[in-house]
Amino acid sequence: MSEPVRIGLLGCGTVGGAFVQLLDDRVDALEAATGVRPEITGVLTTSEGNFDEILADADIVVELMGGTTTAKDHVLAALNAGKPVVTANKQLLAQHGAELFAAAAENGVQLRFEAAIAAVVPVVRVVQESFSAVEFTKISGIVNGTTNFILSEMASTGSSYEDTLERAKELGYAEADPTDDVNGADAAAKMAILARLAFHTPVTLDQVDYEGIESVQPDDLAYAKELGLSLKLLGVAERLPDGITVRVFPCFLYSGHPLSPIGGPFNAVTVEAPEITEVTLSGPGAGGLQTAAAVLGDLASIVSGEAQVHSVHRDLPVLTDMDSSFYLHLEVADEPGVLAEVAKLLSDGGISVKSVVQRGNASDARLVMVVHRCSEADFKAAVGRIGELDALRSSPRFIRVIEEEFV
Amino acid sequence: MSEPVRIGLLGCGTVGGAFVQLLDDRVDALEAATGVRPEITGVLTTSEGNFDEILADADIVVELMGGTTTAKDHVLAALNAGKPVVTANKQLLAQHGAELFAAAAENGVQLRFEAAIAAVVPVVRVVQESFSAVEFTKISGIVNGTTNFILSEMASTGSSYEDTLERAKELGYAEADPTDDVNGADAAAKMAILARLAFHTPVTLDQVDYEGIESVQPDDLAYAKELGLSLKLLGVAERLPDGITVRVFPCFLYSGHPLSPIGGPFNAVTVEAPEITEVTLSGPGAGGLQTAAAVLGDLASIVSGEAQVHSVHRDLPVLTDMDSSFYLHLEVADEPGVLAEVAKLLSDGGISVKSVVQRGNASDARLVMVVHRCSEADFKAAVGRIGELDALRSSPRFIRVIEEEFV
Repeated sequence: MSEPVRIGLLGCGTVGGAFVQLLDDRVDALEAATGVRPEITGVLTTSEGNFDEILADADIVVELMGGTTTAKDHVLAALNAGKPVVTANKQLLAQHGAELFAAAAENGVQLRFEAAIAAVVPVVRVVQESFSAVEFTKISGIVNGTTNFILSEMASTGSSYEDTLERAKELGYAEADPTDDVNGADAAAKMAILARLAFHTPVTLDQVDYEGIESVQPDDLAYAKELGLSLKLLGVAERLPDGITVRVFPCFLYSGHPLSPIGGPFNAVTVEAPEITEVTLSGPGAGGLQTAAAVLGDLASIVSGEAQVHSVHRDLPVLTDMDSSFYLHLEVADEPGVLAEVAKLLSDGGISVKSVVQRGNASDARLVMVVHRCSEADFKAAVGRIGELDALRSSPRFIRVIEEEFV
Repeated sequence: MSEPVRIGLLGCGTVGGAFVQLLDDRVDALEAATGVRPEITGVLTTSEGNFDEILADADIVVELMGGTTTAKDHVLAALNAGKPVVTANKQLLAQHGAELFAAAAENGVQLRFEAAIAAVVPVVRVVQESFSAVEFTKISGIVNGTTNFILSEMASTGSSYEDTLERAKELGYAEADPTDDVNGADAAAKMAILARLAFHTPVTLDQVDYEGIESVQPDDLAYAKELGLSLKLLGVAERLPDGITVRVFPCFLYSGHPLSPIGGPFNAVTVEAPEITEVTLSGPGAGGLQTAAAVLGDLASIVSGEAQVHSVHRDLPVLTDMDSSFYLHLEVADEPGVLAEVAKLLSDGGISVKSVVQRGNASDARLVMVVHRCSEADFKAAVGRIGELDALRSSPRFIRVIEEEFV
């Protein structure tokens, strides 16, 4: 039997505890698969353990403590000591990725982070390894399980955002403070990391435009059903002729889109390129055990001696004003000529209508439409003019629609 | 700049030609990602090239010639010469995997074959690397694009199997001789390879029970819609208390199953284990360019120095008689008491009915039902007895139904 590989574990909360248990269960399988037996030789918690001693005793460091200050210092110290690191910390990578990846490269050691994007859905490995020579055109992802659960529930029950969020908290799909999930910040951090991997260009968190789901109305979901659409909080990283764009926004998908069937707390990512058409990965994007399983997969790769393919060797500009198709929801007075006025304002703005649903009457009339792909700036300008119509009973609402046809 | 890595290419048909072109397009990206520049230094075709010379000049061999005789000799020779091999040849691996993997292990060289299972859908890498320490409970796959296209078309158009097969040939989704696709043999070869990887146990092609789609009737698809089901040719490799089972059969899926939305010529594989719940990978499972892209991904992994995690270290028995839920289609005389007779025969056999649709009358009455999970042997015995009823106007037809609930 070979010498065991010594693991220094930083943090032992939900994920850390699950990792300790899973490693114990699977250590024989891991040894059979890799020829090496990992053994936890030190654990750092807020109350116990000395980092310097744990680092000195470790061959590999597993960072599951979270946060971006102490965690950053410890990960840097481990890399600079020539020790590979596995982390599940998306904020750490999104905010300090450049520095950490540089330290890993300088020291010739691996920094692995499969668990940081979508837990056990192996998107990092697939983008970095299976498709290391692929020129991606687009990465689309449902990378936040809390918001996908809330949107799925709202669609199936017709409940309000507020009620559904409460239910998500009760079921453990939302944290006590869900701010970073529901406002899109969590998804933005993951998309920044994915864009960096896919496009080999540095992307910082402040370059990601993001919107959340707080203002989604049950109404929108009901009309969407009539139009054959499902609502998702989507992260989109796209390669364009002049640069890249990385955004997170709620949007409608037609039923043929590979991300359309992804419901509940699940995550999924679709990667596109001419030579691969599109490949979609889906599964549980959170949960202590599932996150721990992703950490264990990274650990297995390190002990089995795989070299990681990763480098940033481009500096593409990050673009913002993008074309899109839109869903537009108007509460209107039930008067003759309203549809004509709205249609004219859209048409004057160069915007073409794809489908319309008109419903209700008198004090409750609604005009709901989907417009074809157009400039976001043009669309917003036209919506601004529509909002000034006397016939409008409330501000117009709009949501992006992903219009692409998939094979 | 480092020395180029020399590639010996065996076979230059559709996939081989696409590989040559793709490597040419992507060689700069590959060099940027891996630090190494691959260069094709020899090509063997039926009319040109000498294998021994090509092997002597190569650092890595890429086998895209197909077949299981010359291809086997060449792959063995390359491995025994200490040269890593990339292949897309599923029949070679399904029939001679044990010998080839043993040669790779003895010589300490990689044998990579992502393209052999589902082209660019990275199921081999994910099973072997991301989940190398996972104890899989089940692998379910739509691993044949021809049959999935045919079943999707039959469901959407109501056309017959024969007409749809002709259409698939016209569109290039079926070969001139589609026998191995439509009878399930192609899927069986892929499932044998996947079962070996997932369960670390040798599985030979003759241990895989398989059925094809030749006898599927448009009727079955029409009734299935009423029952909320979609029909797929599924490969299932399952870990059971006493061993494993590897089968391929047409079956119905409820709409919540992750493979249910996979339509057209696409492939998809769902892997299950307690610590990962379920993870699904989907994308184009065939096509010259997509297969070449998978080959290129394997090549990138070899040149970047990744070690492959793979070993067979178990010898689980391969089981056959399995429990399943079934759809049962009966053409019956429209007489009182037929349903009662059928129900009694099922009940006497210990089989419980989940849902029933009765339709038509007089000479065209049909009784279509779904029964709960039961022993396949018990079900077949009961169907045998039902087939003897005077009221039956033709032989009973049945199709398995995958009943599991997914998250």
